[in-house]
Amino acid sequence: MLLQQEGFMNAEIIGIGSELLLGQIANTDAQFLSQQLSYLGIDVYWHTVVGDNHGRILESLRLASERSDIIITTGGLGPTMDDLSKETVAEFLGLKLEIHHPSLKRIEHYFKSLGRTMSDNNVKQAMFPKEALVLQNDNGTAPGAIIERNNKTYIILPGPPAELKPMFTNYVVPYLADKSNHRIFSKVLRIYGVGESSIEERIQDLLLEQNNPTIAPLAASGEVKLRITAKASSKQDAEALISPVQSKIERRFGNAVYGYDDDTMETVVLNLLRAKKLKLALAESCSGGHISNLITNIPGASDVFLESCITYSNEAKIARLGVLPDTLKKHGAVSYQTAREMAEGIRKTSGADIGAAITGIAGPGGGTREKPVGLVYMAIAGLDGTETRELRLGGSRLRIKYSSALQLLNWLRLYLEKRI
Amino acid sequence: MLLQQEGFMNAEIIGIGSELLLGQIANTDAQFLSQQLSYLGIDVYWHTVVGDNHGRILESLRLASERSDIIITTGGLGPTMDDLSKETVAEFLGLKLEIHHPSLKRIEHYFKSLGRTMSDNNVKQAMFPKEALVLQNDNGTAPGAIIERNNKTYIILPGPPAELKPMFTNYVVPYLADKSNHRIFSKVLRIYGVGESSIEERIQDLLLEQNNPTIAPLAASGEVKLRITAKASSKQDAEALISPVQSKIERRFGNAVYGYDDDTMETVVLNLLRAKKLKLALAESCSGGHISNLITNIPGASDVFLESCITYSNEAKIARLGVLPDTLKKHGAVSYQTAREMAEGIRKTSGADIGAAITGIAGPGGGTREKPVGLVYMAIAGLDGTETRELRLGGSRLRIKYSSALQLLNWLRLYLEKRI
Repeated sequence: MLLQQEGFMNAEIIGIGSELLLGQIANTDAQFLSQQLSYLGIDVYWHTVVGDNHGRILESLRLASERSDIIITTGGLGPTMDDLSKETVAEFLGLKLEIHHPSLKRIEHYFKSLGRTMSDNNVKQAMFPKEALVLQNDNGTAPGAIIERNNKTYIILPGPPAELKPMFTNYVVPYLADKSNHRIFSKVLRIYGVGESSIEERIQDLLLEQNNPTIAPLAASGEVKLRITAKASSKQDAEALISPVQSKIERRFGNAVYGYDDDTMETVVLNLLRAKKLKLALAESCSGGHISNLITNIPGASDVFLESCITYSNEAKIARLGVLPDTLKKHGAVSYQTAREMAEGIRKTSGADIGAAITGIAGPGGGTREKPVGLVYMAIAGLDGTETRELRLGGSRLRIKYSSALQLLNWLRLYLEKRI
Repeated sequence: MLLQQEGFMNAEIIGIGSELLLGQIANTDAQFLSQQLSYLGIDVYWHTVVGDNHGRILESLRLASERSDIIITTGGLGPTMDDLSKETVAEFLGLKLEIHHPSLKRIEHYFKSLGRTMSDNNVKQAMFPKEALVLQNDNGTAPGAIIERNNKTYIILPGPPAELKPMFTNYVVPYLADKSNHRIFSKVLRIYGVGESSIEERIQDLLLEQNNPTIAPLAASGEVKLRITAKASSKQDAEALISPVQSKIERRFGNAVYGYDDDTMETVVLNLLRAKKLKLALAESCSGGHISNLITNIPGASDVFLESCITYSNEAKIARLGVLPDTLKKHGAVSYQTAREMAEGIRKTSGADIGAAITGIAGPGGGTREKPVGLVYMAIAGLDGTETRELRLGGSRLRIKYSSALQLLNWLRLYLEKRI
């Protein structure tokens, strides 16, 4: 309420697409936009979803324009007859579409870069009212647009999250931030290895006294994020509000706080390797390349990451890493001994400073009473010897792959933090 | 429109909860319900989301009752003052709430079984209009309800998916199935390597004449799915409707149709390897383990997948795969020659029947004028020699990793389909 007294705006999100009404996808665009708008101090009171249907798109625009200041449509910007969003917004506002030549050039260029020829109906994606501010699409063919009309702001965005998110962040956020005089600033603390309810219990006093800043726990895959959010008129004022709360939380959770904001476990590990001028090589069995994939998703990983051997078979463990046939026979592929020899083997054969290895039973088959599904061994071999660990995990094959991978990365982080 | 003439019903889903409008959660309840309703042959034309706000809940009910036959609310059934769904539906319909004793007993029992005492405000969760059919909650405290009023069906469901899903499946589906005598069946054709707009152009005649079955194209990451959906009273009748349309589409796209329904490229490749009793090993550079990760996500991959070498450095390409230092010097790590030697090297050193390799520049750094970001070489080495290919891809690092990985998997599929 306070926000509105101060002249804050409210927004409504209209998702357009039959795939939403058929339940083929969840409306994650509305979730993302709602989150982002709340950071900007813009309230969202309505989400609407309609199909690729001219009459219902028009009706949803009429309803939204009566009750909201900012109307955001998502989806329906494709090249086909089905895609009606832009055309219907223009019709609703009494505007004509014409070719926007910079967009047409970008789309032509996009197809050329893929070695494909643009089909005629892609021209439709470059048609906009001349009153529109066209938003370029850095990750696809459909540009978006902002149209100011009758004291309302209409924002037209593409549906695919990989296109919508960067377009919103790079072009819409600066536009909306200019319209608002209070801003929302936040800092995210990323915590690994402590459960959400345990975190809430340990900061209950802070949660009870929160006002500005507020603290919001959010459990994500394998970690908990604590978002500290302040309302302030400048970044400095916000930081002055956030900083004491942040320090209190950091003192309580120590090195379980592994990063901030957009950090991921793999960027933290790569940055530590860079800072300490150490090279890493991996030997993955049960994680099947997942750890290498996470690491190589980060630009510049090749500075510190030499290689990984996904030694799925026993033969590969022997040939690539020098695991002794006798070790496999006596202790099995999933054992402390094999993990140790894998880590030492990858370190030696790759010439890396640190060799890390993981071997386990991801399931659903392959478990026994002594070695059940979810049993995982990890090892880190470094300059000062080799350490090993055992994990016992539950859940599906993917859960076991992903959570054991994260555990090894977290262990690497703690291992590197302790080294000079 | 046809549907309504035939007495088919349509439904609208109203999600109630500020956590949806703040983007703390995605509206997966609406996704689940939409899917389930489509299987029942009930069309969904609108999703709406409002917060825990009396006025807007009332307004959303008014709108929904004017345009939909079945109105489903999700969320807002908790014990606190904030939770207004049931109260507002009752007010909208002019009905009074009274204690539903079987529900009160169940809630008391639920708390007892957890060793906790019920708080007074939980009594609110057992209050229903006497006209309601109360739906018991087997996974929480809040019962749901179905109310028939003025030729409309109001269905009130709890928000947590773990409570909503079984309640809908066990109690609402049988109720709705009784009202409908047609069901929906569908078949998905998965097409790789043809763009969405080009696909639509090539089946425009089928799209224009579609009625029952209908054809819906859906572009997903790197592929297009065509969903053929038939309304029929039995599975056999549906198959008789779907089959001729499916054949027409298959004839037009040939082996670009790589799978059906829940198939993925990696399951198709693994099944081909199994059928032909061939073992695969990989040498990945730019894809960084992504292909191995996809393959090892599939249970039983170890039957046919021996290993992968993620040879990120030149040294690893030489030591692991026997790539010649001279080749790297003369042609570079990203070249036909290196891809060829990687594929032949992994085949030879692993003992696999087929060795596949990929090397490229994923970016954002590392590109030159002759070898720009997005340049990728792939090779497949088999019993009858080695084949190589060049790709020129656009987009971000992740896009290049993911789309080159998919291209190699698709090439492996076509390669295996041609072999005995």
